[in-house]
Amino acid sequence: MGSMNIGVLGTGIVGRTVGSRLVELGHAVAMGSRDTDNPVAHEWLASVGTARGARVGTFADAAGHGALVLNATSGAASIAALKLAGDRNLHGKVLLDLANPLDFSHGMPPSLSVANTDSLGEQIQRSFPDVKVVKTLNTVTADVMVHPERLPEETTMFVSGNDAEAKATAADLLRSFGWRSIVDLGGIEGARGQEMYLPLWVSLMGAQSTPNFNVRLVRA
Amino acid sequence: MGSMNIGVLGTGIVGRTVGSRLVELGHAVAMGSRDTDNPVAHEWLASVGTARGARVGTFADAAGHGALVLNATSGAASIAALKLAGDRNLHGKVLLDLANPLDFSHGMPPSLSVANTDSLGEQIQRSFPDVKVVKTLNTVTADVMVHPERLPEETTMFVSGNDAEAKATAADLLRSFGWRSIVDLGGIEGARGQEMYLPLWVSLMGAQSTPNFNVRLVRA
Repeated sequence: MGSMNIGVLGTGIVGRTVGSRLVELGHAVAMGSRDTDNPVAHEWLASVGTARGARVGTFADAAGHGALVLNATSGAASIAALKLAGDRNLHGKVLLDLANPLDFSHGMPPSLSVANTDSLGEQIQRSFPDVKVVKTLNTVTADVMVHPERLPEETTMFVSGNDAEAKATAADLLRSFGWRSIVDLGGIEGARGQEMYLPLWVSLMGAQSTPNFNVRLVRA
Repeated sequence: MGSMNIGVLGTGIVGRTVGSRLVELGHAVAMGSRDTDNPVAHEWLASVGTARGARVGTFADAAGHGALVLNATSGAASIAALKLAGDRNLHGKVLLDLANPLDFSHGMPPSLSVANTDSLGEQIQRSFPDVKVVKTLNTVTADVMVHPERLPEETTMFVSGNDAEAKATAADLLRSFGWRSIVDLGGIEGARGQEMYLPLWVSLMGAQSTPNFNVRLVRA
């Protein structure tokens, strides 16, 4: 895909890793956080440089900048972050939701703050009905998100969302990261399965002592 | 593994498919259901024959018969079925729990009747503290459970449970079915991840129009 203006909401490991990869791929990335003087955001900007138009700002700055917006905030903070990003800055845009509604308040293993009959992806879509939400990338660790080819076999990435064009845009971005096996789960209610996979992922991380894994879908 | 007495609780597609495979592998299988005159159980018995000691009876008959017991009832009915099987008949035995707590009362897609901070596997273990519960096989359709080699690549099966010897027995049985990649998720709380994978499985079944699939774990 050609160079785009992309807003990345969140300065955690997911936001920084995905943001850096997007800069590397030639996109003009604005990383958004709650405060403009977020030191982690400025460290990130220093690491990627400004030659390709990378910059940092508020959630609203990043959302306004992006033709495409990525939610890389923690699940518990996502709705609040998107409200700060603002309806006007998000209106009509494709929003890739990478977040997981992990709840560590009851200790380990984490539970989900929303599950089973609803999901964070659906909550975001309901809160921003004019935004084209696509759930994806939440089922792997940050490094695997942007370098799936580092695993020894091709593995599978899932997308769900109500808008076919938005899912095509998401798939283009995924392919630019290196994904080849992309499975469309249907509407945004597919986010339930994508998010409820997380407890198995957490168990597998514990069993293998590494987050660098994924699953490959094998069909008859 | 050598020939064993095995009790299979449940006469649905899972119980019948697994029961038939166990007979084929030389085990003496008792299939249990609520009533001794269950026509589906008698049809199953006619299909496998009695030469290898197969028989049908109540949940209590089947549990009493088995040195190893398999819960293949529907998730919503499992605790009641195990209570009918009886503490005395289950005491100290290995119980493989194949059930999923799918709740179709809110329509499609199904939700789970227990999830997130608890699981059916844990509920069963708490209800029968002297039974060695191992959660396994619930992440694939019945045919894949007993013929994983019919998929074009080796895929992964998960086990969880508190008793290491019981998990070794489960792994022996899984290998006899054809499983080669068996991942131990740790204690029975791993059942949360195994059961919460189901909504993704249901979405994938819809996306692919076949239940004959599974995932292969790929690690760095």
